[in-house]
Amino acid sequence: MDKLNPFIDGVSITALRIISDERGAVLHMLRVDEPQFEGFGELYFSSVKPSVVKAWKRHHSMVQRFTVPVGAIRLVIYDDRPESPTQGVLQVVETGMAFGRYELIRLPAMVWYGFIGISETESLIANCASLPHCAAEVDRMTAESMAIPYKWTNP
Amino acid sequence: MDKLNPFIDGVSITALRIISDERGAVLHMLRVDEPQFEGFGELYFSSVKPSVVKAWKRHHSMVQRFTVPVGAIRLVIYDDRPESPTQGVLQVVETGMAFGRYELIRLPAMVWYGFIGISETESLIANCASLPHCAAEVDRMTAESMAIPYKWTNP
Repeated sequence: MDKLNPFIDGVSITALRIISDERGAVLHMLRVDEPQFEGFGELYFSSVKPSVVKAWKRHHSMVQRFTVPVGAIRLVIYDDRPESPTQGVLQVVETGMAFGRYELIRLPAMVWYGFIGISETESLIANCASLPHCAAEVDRMTAESMAIPYKWTNP
Repeated sequence: MDKLNPFIDGVSITALRIISDERGAVLHMLRVDEPQFEGFGELYFSSVKPSVVKAWKRHHSMVQRFTVPVGAIRLVIYDDRPESPTQGVLQVVETGMAFGRYELIRLPAMVWYGFIGISETESLIANCASLPHCAAEVDRMTAESMAIPYKWTNP
């Protein structure tokens, strides 16, 4: 495990294919025949303005697959799962088309996460989740919570 | 059928939910428990620059579900299916967040379609398709084809 950029157990980051030409681009995200698929529950988008924080949330059962096809975000993930081999690890991922990083990020259930818009324009996060949204399986804490050793700032 | 804005058999347009606040928005697209679901094959994005045309294509088997979470496009659909009750109909849909129209558009197999970017900035089209992409089930014609009674211009 890289000490400067640790990976939390169950998190994966996969570079995705972009086919660009002078008209625009085609950005792959997820196919049913890929190992990252793990079922379809709901697809939705979240937009976040520059320097705005959306944090913290965790899902009890939902596995999330994020991409950032517009703009860029800093995604912060914190593992406090008692049985996890990476318990106590905080992982920071900067991702998004505006930074030339177009990636599929898998977020397992029961990790805390939040993000901040770090591009000059509004960012768009796509989430292809394994389950449909259900408020009963979501926990929330404020961005200022002392339970997670991270202070939101931009940059 | 509205003569000025006819609907092609198998095409549907559904207004989608947007939950906005000062930080950004959450844009719904598709849930597994909705009637529009019809299976998951592949999720990808297509970006198109202002006034750029991407046309014409048709899929033999794939059902497509489009949204435009960024920018706006004019989507033109042409039905030349011999058995269709709307054979010969051309349908024009202007859609996209930049125009305040955030909608799920269902495109059946075997209709011709193309689009043009009509917002001031690049547009992003999400396609949650019923099958993974397969070149063998796609037909193409140039945007200038005389087989379809439509001339691409912007506006």
